[in-house]
Amino acid sequence: MIKLGVMCSGRGSDLQSIIDAIADGKLEAQIALVLTDKPNVMALERAERAGIKNLCVDRKLCADQLSFEAKLLNELRAAEVDLVILAGFMRILSPTFVRAYKDRIMNIHPSLLPAFPGAHAHRDVLEYGVKVSGCTVHFVDEGTDSGPIIMQAAVPVLEGDDEESLAARVLEQEHIIYPAAIRLYVEGRLNIKGRKVCIV
Amino acid sequence: MIKLGVMCSGRGSDLQSIIDAIADGKLEAQIALVLTDKPNVMALERAERAGIKNLCVDRKLCADQLSFEAKLLNELRAAEVDLVILAGFMRILSPTFVRAYKDRIMNIHPSLLPAFPGAHAHRDVLEYGVKVSGCTVHFVDEGTDSGPIIMQAAVPVLEGDDEESLAARVLEQEHIIYPAAIRLYVEGRLNIKGRKVCIV
Repeated sequence: MIKLGVMCSGRGSDLQSIIDAIADGKLEAQIALVLTDKPNVMALERAERAGIKNLCVDRKLCADQLSFEAKLLNELRAAEVDLVILAGFMRILSPTFVRAYKDRIMNIHPSLLPAFPGAHAHRDVLEYGVKVSGCTVHFVDEGTDSGPIIMQAAVPVLEGDDEESLAARVLEQEHIIYPAAIRLYVEGRLNIKGRKVCIV
Repeated sequence: MIKLGVMCSGRGSDLQSIIDAIADGKLEAQIALVLTDKPNVMALERAERAGIKNLCVDRKLCADQLSFEAKLLNELRAAEVDLVILAGFMRILSPTFVRAYKDRIMNIHPSLLPAFPGAHAHRDVLEYGVKVSGCTVHFVDEGTDSGPIIMQAAVPVLEGDDEESLAARVLEQEHIIYPAAIRLYVEGRLNIKGRKVCIV
């Protein structure tokens, strides 16, 4: 059974969608560990409630990025994690971290990449005035939101949308495609060729 | 009745979708003129067959961009065109031309802008490896494929797609949203606010 390490910074709603997919038999995997970079976030509660090992590696208590990532890597290795799942994890990971789990880190981003990368996707989408947005599951490479794309879902932007209403609509699709993308990985159906992911 | 001037460079399949929408009573407008920048292209035939005034302003017979655009503008004005429709018109228009029909030039682009602007959208989409592409109807501003977005439609990129198969799938949506976007204009429902288009 593939072991997942899920890293979150906040509510953990994407984490919940993975917990639910496993509980519902839609995803054959085990969440070995939930890690957060902040204490007292809801993601930890969700993990606790589901009986999943969870802990916070508080970034603010780490001397620097290097020691922060060293602690994360130690925990992931101790839990024998095969695939790292970033689920609303709001820290950029260094090339060293990315290389340690090369082609084994997934992220979900709330836009149709390569459009609107970065930490304020919904705001940027609304300011630009696009009529279609969406979400993207991708492997993490050494750039920001630039890695090979696994799945995407389109979501309409509606008249009168604000960041909150758009985020809620996109989140519904995130909760569908993230477990589905992890399932493809678990089933060995993802082939990375250069910067593209072929689904076999 | 709003008079359209449709400018094409090739097959004119988007032109045909507009001709058909008018014939089917789905769009109340009149195509006053079809202009091309090349002789002997199918767009001219389609216009001829539909009884629409058409002519080629051959770019290669014009001394420079300025004289080319002056001829285009003369023809559009002589035909009393209200709204200029770029339908596979493969020339960049100068700021002078754009200002002459400020907020009255529409273009369709075969990607979900702002992703994949430029003349090789499908190739760029496939090279990047996105899983969702689409098409965009936008007002033309002084940049390239950068103007306020009116409508977009998402289209899946499928395993094994090449430029031709993807283009065909996107074209189906182009033929739906271009007449629909023109209809919104004709009905007075498009409000440009800064770089955004509100549909009222």
